Amino acid sequence: MPLNRKHPLDTMFHPKAIAVIGASTNATETGWVKRLIESCYQGKIYPVNPKAKEISGLKTYSNISDVPDSVYYAILNVPAQAATQALRDCVARGVKFVHCYTAGFSENGNPEGKRLENELTKIIKGSQTRLLGPNCMGVYCPASGLTFSEDFPKEKGRIAVVSQSGAEASRLVLLCQDVNLYFSKVISYGNAADLDAPELLDYLTNDNVTDIIALYIEGVKDATLFISAVRKCLAKKPVIILAAGTTANGARASLAHTASITWNEDQWHDFFRQTGAIPAATMDGMADIIQGLMRFKNMKGKRTAIIGRGGGIGVVAADICESTGLTVPPFSRATQKKLLKIRPDAGAAFGNPVEPKLGMEGAAEFYLQGLPIIDADTATDIILIQMAIDIYGGHGPDLAQTVIESAYALCAATDSIKKPLAVSLFSGGRTDTILAAVAARDILTKAGIAVFPGVESAARAISKVSRYRGF
Amino acid sequence: MPLNRKHPLDTMFHPKAIAVIGASTNATETGWVKRLIESCYQGKIYPVNPKAKEISGLKTYSNISDVPDSVYYAILNVPAQAATQALRDCVARGVKFVHCYTAGFSENGNPEGKRLENELTKIIKGSQTRLLGPNCMGVYCPASGLTFSEDFPKEKGRIAVVSQSGAEASRLVLLCQDVNLYFSKVISYGNAADLDAPELLDYLTNDNVTDIIALYIEGVKDATLFISAVRKCLAKKPVIILAAGTTANGARASLAHTASITWNEDQWHDFFRQTGAIPAATMDGMADIIQGLMRFKNMKGKRTAIIGRGGGIGVVAADICESTGLTVPPFSRATQKKLLKIRPDAGAAFGNPVEPKLGMEGAAEFYLQGLPIIDADTATDIILIQMAIDIYGGHGPDLAQTVIESAYALCAATDSIKKPLAVSLFSGGRTDTILAAVAARDILTKAGIAVFPGVESAARAISKVSRYRGF
Repeated sequence: MPLNRKHPLDTMFHPKAIAVIGASTNATETGWVKRLIESCYQGKIYPVNPKAKEISGLKTYSNISDVPDSVYYAILNVPAQAATQALRDCVARGVKFVHCYTAGFSENGNPEGKRLENELTKIIKGSQTRLLGPNCMGVYCPASGLTFSEDFPKEKGRIAVVSQSGAEASRLVLLCQDVNLYFSKVISYGNAADLDAPELLDYLTNDNVTDIIALYIEGVKDATLFISAVRKCLAKKPVIILAAGTTANGARASLAHTASITWNEDQWHDFFRQTGAIPAATMDGMADIIQGLMRFKNMKGKRTAIIGRGGGIGVVAADICESTGLTVPPFSRATQKKLLKIRPDAGAAFGNPVEPKLGMEGAAEFYLQGLPIIDADTATDIILIQMAIDIYGGHGPDLAQTVIESAYALCAATDSIKKPLAVSLFSGGRTDTILAAVAARDILTKAGIAVFPGVESAARAISKVSRYRGF
Repeated sequence: MPLNRKHPLDTMFHPKAIAVIGASTNATETGWVKRLIESCYQGKIYPVNPKAKEISGLKTYSNISDVPDSVYYAILNVPAQAATQALRDCVARGVKFVHCYTAGFSENGNPEGKRLENELTKIIKGSQTRLLGPNCMGVYCPASGLTFSEDFPKEKGRIAVVSQSGAEASRLVLLCQDVNLYFSKVISYGNAADLDAPELLDYLTNDNVTDIIALYIEGVKDATLFISAVRKCLAKKPVIILAAGTTANGARASLAHTASITWNEDQWHDFFRQTGAIPAATMDGMADIIQGLMRFKNMKGKRTAIIGRGGGIGVVAADICESTGLTVPPFSRATQKKLLKIRPDAGAAFGNPVEPKLGMEGAAEFYLQGLPIIDADTATDIILIQMAIDIYGGHGPDLAQTVIESAYALCAATDSIKKPLAVSLFSGGRTDTILAAVAARDILTKAGIAVFPGVESAARAISKVSRYRGF
């Protein structure tokens, strides 16, 4: 696509005016109008509701045909039975994109739902109007202020999401926000009566503010089109896919969710082999892979150095790394001697895993002195650090201070080292250790260090990223 | 074993007098003496240190031979070079159990470490003294006040742990405490120069205050003895095993940790098939299985009902359940109709997963009304509830109150239902949602409801418990 020409879908993310058809008159709930105002949407908002004159301080229209200016995007928030007429009105008005939030179409399993959905597609056929949904949350684009949740951050980022599930998309946004990662565009597209994954992927492939694409998908309608879109995307940027409804009961649930006919595990297995897309099993796993892709810079391989905090935990960590396809090779004799010198303790071990045998109170010093030594050893490519605040933090009044100091020491050490870091920050369930972990995670992720809730998730992310990068 | 005769190891858990050899004179650190006092150990404590007259207000002796009364348990906290003489003194004094906390024996890889460890076993040979360790944390027994961490709870429970790793044992204690589960006895046994897993298992098999045994093991010295001990135990109570050092690099780490020669994955695979012991991959997994065993009462099978909070999350949950060996069969038409009646919403689904399509604010009512209906349906055996506070909580001031009300509603509903519940409580990483989740978890687990941090961990626990119970 030429640089000076806009992609046809671009208006969906940056509409100059939005109509909310069926705008809520309930002042206590956060309806679509209030949500757009709160998220600082910059364009014009036209509430449409025949029963109101004004909603959230905005003049309200009886019908979209009464709106005086052009409408680029309409949100349908009316019952399914009324949605067809509302869509007809939008087509007549020349609205470019209609997001049908309304549910109760083919996913409800009744012939009437199916009929209504067919009606929707018939209405837009041959028109200039494109339909997103029905049965979906729509678009979140922090650059334009368009959103579907008042809890979403206003910060812009470089991750895009294409998701049939609004709930799973929301989880990903919040999980990433927790580690200071933000989004360019999120599209919840539900039943995909018109706009579907291949076209949305095509847009994001060419979107120069998007570096990574996360896809939650239940149904693939046209396999050739889908595979082709994913391949074109992968030629430019990574695509991570959570394929849902892959089991018999998952497929039945998907049918009730978005009326999707799903692929089974074998079909997806073949797909991932054919395309090289990155598979994720859950949204937590998706968030972990995204962190790895964004933060494992200068990664040269999958040989993992482990800095532990207690022998058994290190043994299990080595097992987990190896089980996920990584290796944990021993350091050179010279490296081991250097590490022994900064921590001459009978209970310590330096082979890899390194077990400095310290409570959290000695961690900061070990990171500053030990990390450069491990960084210089040629046996490993990436450093996995286990910060086990739950068992080594202790529950004294100094806990938060000690943990925060360790986190800052890690950030300081990172400046001088070349290998990527993965921090496994397990906090346990006590309030004091959790809050200390939340504070540490914020410091570390703001400094661009990848932080995971455990060794399993860290190892899985390292493994997936290293496989994607060809190691 | 006759009921009126004590097991020979019983004194190790309930010693009437303890000597701490090499008691710390550093008043600022929590040494063994201070730890025993703080944990309300009821017997006599004899600090031994030639350089002190008094430690933590207790008369201190130059040598254990100076202690005026019988000593049943001694903790060796002296350097490895001094440990042999200290052990000789204990044998001469007739001490029944010596816990060698000291590290620097065969696990350090030097011939001198190996020689010193051989020396330890020679010293006790033919004597009345048994050795725990070296290189271990020793015993935690809340009933007697014996402990190895000042952070451990004083509450007694019915779970026992046998672990070569003190850190992993500690993690398990803290993970279980987070869900209000407590311990009868925990033994960290390190290099196992004398006391080893088979004998410890034999004790716990016959221990009538222990219902469940968790084992973390790196090295099996005598396979026949070990398999026999596990089988005898399984005849009476469940045994869950985290086998560590099963990979090549894990095995190398284990050698440096406890000098153990480990089994590989194939050997463990055979073992689990032969014995029926329950395998755990991590301590988090171990804690989840323990919860399942303790809290899935009246479980009749593995057919799982899922109460979700958003379509896509339910689809993924169904996939996860089926992938871990569970089934998610649809409810009867009658059940679906009843559920629809209490929640007539276009976006809801009632097939299983149930998707009540509510924010957290409607959750309490749905639990009270919906759970009895799902309980009465004959298609399922266990109910998995997804409380996704992170996405459905919202971040308003009412969050904590709403979540706590939902938790109490679940507890109230439980009184009248027969099927076991598993709650998947995902909190996200924001402080407000985390604190709400911690409060809810405490309410639920105090009421005896099993709570897991996610659907994956819940499904795995249900699967392992159902397999153990023969479903």
